[in-house]
Amino acid sequence: MFEAIFENVRRIRPLIHNITNYVTVNDCANIILACGASPIMADDEAEAAEITALCSGLNINMGTLNCRTISSMKIAGKKANELNHPVVLDPVGAGASAFRTETALNLLEEVKFTVIRGNISEIKTLAYGSSTTKGVDADRMDQVTEENLNQAVILAKSFARKTGAVAAITGAIDIVADEKTAYCIRNGNPMMSSVTGTGCQLSAMTAAFVAANPAQPLEAAGAAVCAMGLAGEIAYQRLMPLDGNAAYRNYMIDAVYHLEAKGLKEGANYEVR
Amino acid sequence: MFEAIFENVRRIRPLIHNITNYVTVNDCANIILACGASPIMADDEAEAAEITALCSGLNINMGTLNCRTISSMKIAGKKANELNHPVVLDPVGAGASAFRTETALNLLEEVKFTVIRGNISEIKTLAYGSSTTKGVDADRMDQVTEENLNQAVILAKSFARKTGAVAAITGAIDIVADEKTAYCIRNGNPMMSSVTGTGCQLSAMTAAFVAANPAQPLEAAGAAVCAMGLAGEIAYQRLMPLDGNAAYRNYMIDAVYHLEAKGLKEGANYEVR
Amino acid sequence: MFEAIFENVRRIRPLIHNITNYVTVNDCANIILACGASPIMADDEAEAAEITALCSGLNINMGTLNCRTISSMKIAGKKANELNHPVVLDPVGAGASAFRTETALNLLEEVKFTVIRGNISEIKTLAYGSSTTKGVDADRMDQVTEENLNQAVILAKSFARKTGAVAAITGAIDIVADEKTAYCIRNGNPMMSSVTGTGCQLSAMTAAFVAANPAQPLEAAGAAVCAMGLAGEIAYQRLMPLDGNAAYRNYMIDAVYHLEAKGLKEGANYEVR
Repeated sequence: MFEAIFENVRRIRPLIHNITNYVTVNDCANIILACGASPIMADDEAEAAEITALCSGLNINMGTLNCRTISSMKIAGKKANELNHPVVLDPVGAGASAFRTETALNLLEEVKFTVIRGNISEIKTLAYGSSTTKGVDADRMDQVTEENLNQAVILAKSFARKTGAVAAITGAIDIVADEKTAYCIRNGNPMMSSVTGTGCQLSAMTAAFVAANPAQPLEAAGAAVCAMGLAGEIAYQRLMPLDGNAAYRNYMIDAVYHLEAKGLKEGANYEVR
Repeated sequence: MFEAIFENVRRIRPLIHNITNYVTVNDCANIILACGASPIMADDEAEAAEITALCSGLNINMGTLNCRTISSMKIAGKKANELNHPVVLDPVGAGASAFRTETALNLLEEVKFTVIRGNISEIKTLAYGSSTTKGVDADRMDQVTEENLNQAVILAKSFARKTGAVAAITGAIDIVADEKTAYCIRNGNPMMSSVTGTGCQLSAMTAAFVAANPAQPLEAAGAAVCAMGLAGEIAYQRLMPLDGNAAYRNYMIDAVYHLEAKGLKEGANYEVR
Repeated sequence: MFEAIFENVRRIRPLIHNITNYVTVNDCANIILACGASPIMADDEAEAAEITALCSGLNINMGTLNCRTISSMKIAGKKANELNHPVVLDPVGAGASAFRTETALNLLEEVKFTVIRGNISEIKTLAYGSSTTKGVDADRMDQVTEENLNQAVILAKSFARKTGAVAAITGAIDIVADEKTAYCIRNGNPMMSSVTGTGCQLSAMTAAFVAANPAQPLEAAGAAVCAMGLAGEIAYQRLMPLDGNAAYRNYMIDAVYHLEAKGLKEGANYEVR
């Protein structure tokens, strides 16, 4: 199924509106291009609705959140809802400050999201209203392991039920779930955490996958998470002795560029719970 | 002639003031350095005029356009006009939203531009006040081909006459024209569209070329367009099997870094119409 | 001593709050990760104090300075002072505009900095209230050479005395000084100036080194300056014939990623004056 989903991305080449942070925005644009879609970045409230209307998917990322763009996020989100465009939320740093937590909770009230992708600490913050987040990385106490995987699956399904969105919780093991079905995904490589913005890139790519497969948000988000993890694996294999996190960053985007639907199908490593 | 123009860039090393978007700004800075010039990015109205006065060229790019920096663009543009510094406009996304179209048209009224570089849809928007732009890429309906090249040349010359600027319309075939003469340039590679911001980079580099050759804006813009296209060709030749758009992005900047005046002269592929 | 300092960075993995420019921010994040620390970028005044409180060091960088974030810099700086967190200032472009010079001087009044890292023109501007800065690069007239090194050391010590901060003046020869002791460092490679933001990256990394070694700010800043210069040397050795400034940018970050405490100790090239 992931095969057909990815083929749709490459064939339909959806245009994705991104309201995102200035740290990882270039990588988000290039990974959207790498997977076969097309990015547009626009964050001013004067054009947020109009740009979203041109596109077929919206990606809202809260990194470097600032007062100027929150209204743009809401305007674009509501317009996308009105037009039935898929909307992805990446609540970067929810739990790290009241400003981010409250903005995320407020966005959840005002916009209907198709997929919410975050680390376990960010998702717990949104699910429970508080967390142990330290900065923009997941707290060690929170991390999903084989031991607590079932509990995390329950959290993901319950969060999906509550929000109506597919929950994509990424970490050493990724969980992508709607209220009934959870994909537990074991693609990826620990070195991905040494590159800034692999999560942001995944959220951007998820928006492209869901926009090209609007009737299958769970499967599309699952395919995007597998594709990113697989890119992390392929890129890791390519590393030469002197290559570090800068090379790895480039190799991951290159791996997405060369990924084929068949390769995604064969490399995807998941079980359904 | 392109040889002497490029030698001037490397010798004079002009300082270029950029008011540009946060998506591709790092690549713009690095390609300005690669061609031998020096970048400064400053977008607050409190310093826009002063920074422009320090520099010898100004590059205004409308990507991620926002309310805060429009006044800075005008202040810097007017100061540059007053000082007879060349000014380049990259009307990213003109036609994609009323906000961008109106801002671009308003900038054209208040600032005299030396070069306006955009894709065919953006230029049509500015020439006719409307277009079929879809997002930040040129619309397929608009694309310049061998069949409609003469019409596009007429458009470019007429737009140049109307604005007093050199028109640089880039795509599969590039046209760089003043009201009398058009260079039709066939450098470049289709893979350039898989890297975000090659257009932005070209605009930044064009500002450097024109700043080092202020008496020859047509030839300087033509040389910059050929240099970028040639870099796209050289970088493409360098690609190894696993290299994708991230490697290609780096190779293009590297190609500009190593480009020599003689290589530009020999590789430039253009005719005059 | 640099050996133990670097080991602390890798062991403690300090979280660094960055309020920085949108040109080089991605490289700053990746070099912080490369050296073993963890970055968070947050610039809105609504969360500046809270984010700083989560972290163990703060990096304030004035590139693309704008009205919106100056108050965030002050709020975060004061909070960091209150919590005894080290604070680094990179006064990018001080001297290039009144806006930057005044903001830098104002920050010096309101925030106590642990390290101030700039080029010689920027530091002269802050020391004397004016300079010959041209843009964001040091003016040639100002450059530190073997001939004027002793004078520059006197300036650095006097500036350190005046501000209570370690002065880190980087260029062909780097000087890192408190009021009594100056390290004169001869690591690095001239090609580093062909990559945008090597100074910004160094400031970000310095914040990580000082945060992991709060009792030894002079030595920590010295170690960071040597590490960056050494990365520039190692990266230069790795260049292949077609590699330019884009490859060099990646290689420097990769070199930091692979740098070991022992390698830093052996490669550090400095004398004490």
